[in-house]
Amino acid sequence: MEKTLGLHILADLYGVDFEKIDHVEDVRALLEGAVKYAGLSKLSSHFHQFHPHGATGVILLEESHISIHTWPEHGYAAIDVYTCGGKEKTFKAMEYILKVLKPKRVDEKVAERGVVPVNEATTNIEKIELETV
Amino acid sequence: MEKTLGLHILADLYGVDFEKIDHVEDVRALLEGAVKYAGLSKLSSHFHQFHPHGATGVILLEESHISIHTWPEHGYAAIDVYTCGGKEKTFKAMEYILKVLKPKRVDEKVAERGVVPVNEATTNIEKIELETV
Repeated sequence: MEKTLGLHILADLYGVDFEKIDHVEDVRALLEGAVKYAGLSKLSSHFHQFHPHGATGVILLEESHISIHTWPEHGYAAIDVYTCGGKEKTFKAMEYILKVLKPKRVDEKVAERGVVPVNEATTNIEKIELETV
Repeated sequence: MEKTLGLHILADLYGVDFEKIDHVEDVRALLEGAVKYAGLSKLSSHFHQFHPHGATGVILLEESHISIHTWPEHGYAAIDVYTCGGKEKTFKAMEYILKVLKPKRVDEKVAERGVVPVNEATTNIEKIELETV
């Protein structure tokens, strides 16, 4: 038997309003909002303002990460939502981002990350992890 | 005319030695080494130790980001190298990581991120950016 450890959505958003993705504080609020909406668990968040335009940032999660890089001069934002917290949370986080940014077009790819065998040894490790939560 | 803003390599590494990916300081040194080897420009780096096993981390770059999430109990590491600094740097960073971790098997996907039209307006913006460097 096998299981998949993570789900990774890569989304290229086109036709996004310049003002929505130019300032780091808006971009930070967007990702923080997505994490909250999806019920993901934040470890830490890190953002940077570029000049003259655009911002970049990542939130490290218990479940992996969510990141954004923006080129407002092209109306473009690159979003990654990569989580190991179940598919539902991954799609909810992306749904929130799309609702806020309202891109005219989205190019979305979904990748399964980490297909590993389920054997007795890994089952035991998972049990230990659950007990320590 | 069109141009592609970024190149993103997603690599799933299997059969990695437990000890190489269990401790956050080794994982940090790995990504810092990859950034240096590839000639990428670090903005900031952020790492976290999981218990009982594994680590997670990201380095934000002028050129986007490089991240790692490890499951040493599965001999598995998920690597993302996403850069806008030219294809050569992207592949060099991944080359470094594979040399250090020596996985038995790699599942690698390459995605082009952000295909935008090249017009006079964007050309002017790029000129301005170059002048401010």
